[in-house]
Amino acid sequence: MTSEHENETPNSMTHDDAYARAGVDIAAGNQAVARYRDITSAWRHPLQLGAIGGFSGLFQLPGDERRALVGSTDGVGTKILIAAELGRYDTVGQDLVNHCVNDILVVNAKPLFFLDYLAVGKLDPEVAGAVVGGIQVACRAHEMALLGGETAEMPGVYQAKHFDLAGTIVGIVDVADVPNHERVMPGDAIVALPAIGLHTNGYSLARALIPQSEWSAPFAGATFADALLAVHPSYYADVRAIERVADVKAMAHITGGGLLENVPRTLPPGCKAIFEQTRWEIPPLERELVMRGDLSHEERYRTLNMGIGYTLIVPLGDAPKAVSAVAGAKVVGWIEQRREGDPAVVVHPARER
Amino acid sequence: MTSEHENETPNSMTHDDAYARAGVDIAAGNQAVARYRDITSAWRHPLQLGAIGGFSGLFQLPGDERRALVGSTDGVGTKILIAAELGRYDTVGQDLVNHCVNDILVVNAKPLFFLDYLAVGKLDPEVAGAVVGGIQVACRAHEMALLGGETAEMPGVYQAKHFDLAGTIVGIVDVADVPNHERVMPGDAIVALPAIGLHTNGYSLARALIPQSEWSAPFAGATFADALLAVHPSYYADVRAIERVADVKAMAHITGGGLLENVPRTLPPGCKAIFEQTRWEIPPLERELVMRGDLSHEERYRTLNMGIGYTLIVPLGDAPKAVSAVAGAKVVGWIEQRREGDPAVVVHPARER
Repeated sequence: MTSEHENETPNSMTHDDAYARAGVDIAAGNQAVARYRDITSAWRHPLQLGAIGGFSGLFQLPGDERRALVGSTDGVGTKILIAAELGRYDTVGQDLVNHCVNDILVVNAKPLFFLDYLAVGKLDPEVAGAVVGGIQVACRAHEMALLGGETAEMPGVYQAKHFDLAGTIVGIVDVADVPNHERVMPGDAIVALPAIGLHTNGYSLARALIPQSEWSAPFAGATFADALLAVHPSYYADVRAIERVADVKAMAHITGGGLLENVPRTLPPGCKAIFEQTRWEIPPLERELVMRGDLSHEERYRTLNMGIGYTLIVPLGDAPKAVSAVAGAKVVGWIEQRREGDPAVVVHPARER
Repeated sequence: MTSEHENETPNSMTHDDAYARAGVDIAAGNQAVARYRDITSAWRHPLQLGAIGGFSGLFQLPGDERRALVGSTDGVGTKILIAAELGRYDTVGQDLVNHCVNDILVVNAKPLFFLDYLAVGKLDPEVAGAVVGGIQVACRAHEMALLGGETAEMPGVYQAKHFDLAGTIVGIVDVADVPNHERVMPGDAIVALPAIGLHTNGYSLARALIPQSEWSAPFAGATFADALLAVHPSYYADVRAIERVADVKAMAHITGGGLLENVPRTLPPGCKAIFEQTRWEIPPLERELVMRGDLSHEERYRTLNMGIGYTLIVPLGDAPKAVSAVAGAKVVGWIEQRREGDPAVVVHPARER
């Protein structure tokens, strides 16, 4: 469970179950976010562009009204515990960078540079090199500089083999190119880019439901370990390809909070998003978690991405061009008028097992 | 012990003692830094301005050759363990921000925005609010936006009351204003701004030498706790005041590695820095650590700041103006010609007890 300062407070308290089982306190997260909002709203920098995006912070470039810098910080969460226990350190850096790239992509930012924070109980240069090597691979893939970073050895904070990894991305965008979700209207189509697994969310739950003793067991053509550590994809190239052929009105990166908490941030008042689950595949790992945890509909779509990594809202007429521009892209739903009392996001069917 | 990617590898291996006693492995840190250098030197972004500074990464603003963005990530290190054990959460955020402000100040960058990463074992909204409140206080003091952040609850990584705190600062500088240390020459004066304690370095050592049972004991007019948690000062206003009256050729923020590792980064080949310790005061906490740990000369000046928080190299003729511009500023040494085999930094007297 992670709480971004810029997040909307989730408006439901009914989804505590899956997280609570994994030892994560959603109510505390909401209270912390509320405090952050009080703290940061007491004073704002005049160049801070507030309510536009939601996923990333925008800051107008001094002396250049047409452009804004975009910054976002994120961590890999408890996926690192699985990486540490399996001794596979070369992909968590890619998870981190790709996650951050997608977070600023929703405001159409082009990545400029990245800085990482690696904290360890006992510094193993081999491990640190593998982690930072993965970061550099993903930075280079986006023609982004790995501008610096910090490695901290803190024996009192982390156990010997434990570590934590976070990073900050800075990008730039022409203010005119920031999607304006006020343009979203009933009848628009929702195009999805597929998720290949959990990405970087839901790992506390996954660790609770799939014990380490099973990780080397065969699963879905490989092992649970392979499925658990599958790299968080970057949607950068796919989104750029769709933007070349379709009018993209709003985008969401489906991370912690799933479709139910991330998609509402891309909707104007008076609009709701309807997803039809028969239109896309749920990855094997997420099917497994749903089954093992007997997750409710609410838990599934608020804790896991359930197979959708990124959403784009486009006019219905542009949808065929959008999906033919990118392999795997699918129309998964549409926008309808939202009446008082309606939820912002509905996923049909209510139970899809 | 922290290892920045951009760091020079410390060229001495003789200073392991103080860190080793605190459970921190300097050799591993150096090896990690060497690996980072291999990784990041294999590909560099064309807009990345490499070797200018050393403390921060510089990235040329796309489409504007005259300006560069400056980014730096840092953590508070094991000072957070003392804050956590004492339940004082409102100042570590200031430590973090001020540390980062000083890090980019050495290249004359003006802070634009900040993003934080707070990771906890169990999320307590009160604690998280206090930490982020401290961050906002220090951001506002520098007219810098707190653009966003991430709070991660990771019960498997952190013990219930433990947490970690890191942050990233982004600033901007006119490339022409980045100090050029090639201008430093024999005869220049070294002006120091005073440290008020450990700032954010040396805490693993301090915890090893001053047991928690003593923290509430009277010390230096207050308690050990007060001395240990004294806030890392920002040197922003002081440096700007000196720059108005003196030609500042190079600056160093004295953090991990002390005078012996931070000052060499501000010297051209052929120059060494001579410090005369009788010219400044050593704070009580650092005197206490020297005494309790019987720290060697090398250990003192490589593990602790020993009372100097920030150095500026100015022409001798500008030194009187510089020190009269800021209360507490002192001339503490000078630049001499460095001959083959000379150390880059010498602190007289060799044993000053």
